[in-house]
Amino acid sequence: MIELSENVIKGQSRAVARAISWIENDHEMKESLIDQIYPYCGKAVVWGITGPPGSGKSSLVDHLIFRMRAVGKKVAVIAVDPSSPFSGGAILGDRIRMQKHATDEGVFIRSMASRGHLGGVSGATSDAIKVLDAAGYDLILIETIGVGQTEIEVMELSDVVLLVLVPGLGDEIQALKAGVMEIGDVFVVNKSDRDDADKVRAEVKYILEFKEQNGNYIENPVVMTSAKLNEGIDQLLKDTENYLHNINLKGQLEARRKLRILNEINRIISGKIEEELKTFITQKEKLDNWIEKIYQKKCSPYSFVNENFKTFLKEYKKP
Amino acid sequence: MIELSENVIKGQSRAVARAISWIENDHEMKESLIDQIYPYCGKAVVWGITGPPGSGKSSLVDHLIFRMRAVGKKVAVIAVDPSSPFSGGAILGDRIRMQKHATDEGVFIRSMASRGHLGGVSGATSDAIKVLDAAGYDLILIETIGVGQTEIEVMELSDVVLLVLVPGLGDEIQALKAGVMEIGDVFVVNKSDRDDADKVRAEVKYILEFKEQNGNYIENPVVMTSAKLNEGIDQLLKDTENYLHNINLKGQLEARRKLRILNEINRIISGKIEEELKTFITQKEKLDNWIEKIYQKKCSPYSFVNENFKTFLKEYKKP
Repeated sequence: MIELSENVIKGQSRAVARAISWIENDHEMKESLIDQIYPYCGKAVVWGITGPPGSGKSSLVDHLIFRMRAVGKKVAVIAVDPSSPFSGGAILGDRIRMQKHATDEGVFIRSMASRGHLGGVSGATSDAIKVLDAAGYDLILIETIGVGQTEIEVMELSDVVLLVLVPGLGDEIQALKAGVMEIGDVFVVNKSDRDDADKVRAEVKYILEFKEQNGNYIENPVVMTSAKLNEGIDQLLKDTENYLHNINLKGQLEARRKLRILNEINRIISGKIEEELKTFITQKEKLDNWIEKIYQKKCSPYSFVNENFKTFLKEYKKP
Repeated sequence: MIELSENVIKGQSRAVARAISWIENDHEMKESLIDQIYPYCGKAVVWGITGPPGSGKSSLVDHLIFRMRAVGKKVAVIAVDPSSPFSGGAILGDRIRMQKHATDEGVFIRSMASRGHLGGVSGATSDAIKVLDAAGYDLILIETIGVGQTEIEVMELSDVVLLVLVPGLGDEIQALKAGVMEIGDVFVVNKSDRDDADKVRAEVKYILEFKEQNGNYIENPVVMTSAKLNEGIDQLLKDTENYLHNINLKGQLEARRKLRILNEINRIISGKIEEELKTFITQKEKLDNWIEKIYQKKCSPYSFVNENFKTFLKEYKKP
């Protein structure tokens, strides 16, 4: 076994940090590492936390960390920031947050940027979850900014998704909400001290009524919180754990986790094919001529691919 | 030639709408349609417009439409909304916007959602641009909400990207800006009537100073606008057209468009392989057993893929 795998399994936070760097950099031993720690996974629970910028997700996460530490649970936070492909992550102010918990070995905080990962940021996050799980973190919080497609993929890695909404973010945000209601399991109306918080709560409840309901339907909690005033956090914990308990009883948690495995298989295969493809396509000496032809409108991109698609697979099979 | 292709080339807006639906639904004749209209492309200029929710992008677009119509140019708007995989798009209020221009045959507005397209939303948008180009629209505006990874891919389809910023959206938005500065060509500080607009402008200028500069460097315009007061729009038009003129002179526009073709080829091939793969993987009768094994931690996802990846390519090569 690789030494790093052993140290991850022992729960050494420095090893965990290094393993996640391996994942981010697509280290050549990455897959061996995951293969070796994988049997030690399965104990952690993963909560996704998403919502528009300014909704107070970070403060909520902070409160959750303190509550969990108070009952002796180890907590890890992964802040995923797909909007920051250039800055290399770390824009969520997690340096500041790190300092708050710096002396606490039971807390691990890390931010991940989005570009350059085989399988995208969701692939990297998925592997990071395995590392944290194997290292003995009881609760893994995945935090995303915003509500785009990438964020939705990341949220699909969670056992339960907390969607944080907030009053007064303008019409576009209101419209957004309708689109992302389906990824939320637990709805958090934060900044409940504001006048119009009740209106947001009513809106959420109204939209939830239209959610497709079947025999296995479990009601989605809607919780009012104020991260600022430290209010509603215990209720949020209680409702979320209750929700998890219920979907576990009905077999939905297992189904969700199995679907995640299927998605992961697809993601890994696609990633591998894309890698091969890149090599193939950059090696093709005539590619520049083709691009010139397509640029001149003498050939369409689809015709080019349809003529060359099978060649790729044949070429690939050779070695 | 397919009748629809002919009608697109004639510039019939109903045909354009139908062609885009073909693209969105991956119609079996989609590729033939694109192949046939492709020789008629190459005249349109594509502007990307992005920025955080609430920055007033829609109002800016409205002003741009009116300005362009005043000089007799045909304008098309594609509102891409990756955050809305469930609602099926149309959340950007484009129904309302449609009505404003409903009697004007020279304006075409359409929103596109993100899921279920071969090659993702950027693939579908790329094809929609071809349809609009072939139909004779002089200016194609691509509008995205937010600044995630998907939005960046969509913005990469543009000849020029207008990044709309706005004062007072909180710290997270400010941090976001740093990350997305690189995709912007023209920087728009909207809501210039607000007190802190000058501060945002100064910030942008400051960040731009750190942009890597080479011999071909063309200065990025920073424009103050107020969509509400209809101020600065002419300056924005002038600066953007000037910027396009400059990158064209230096050959950067051609280079950008050729890079886009390369990306498109990659996207189409990946899409095709993924389709084949999905079929292969869902046909595999033992997949459920494998998922169970992986769920039980008896096998890791990577080991599974590494064992089965080559089988897929072999199987595929058969016919």
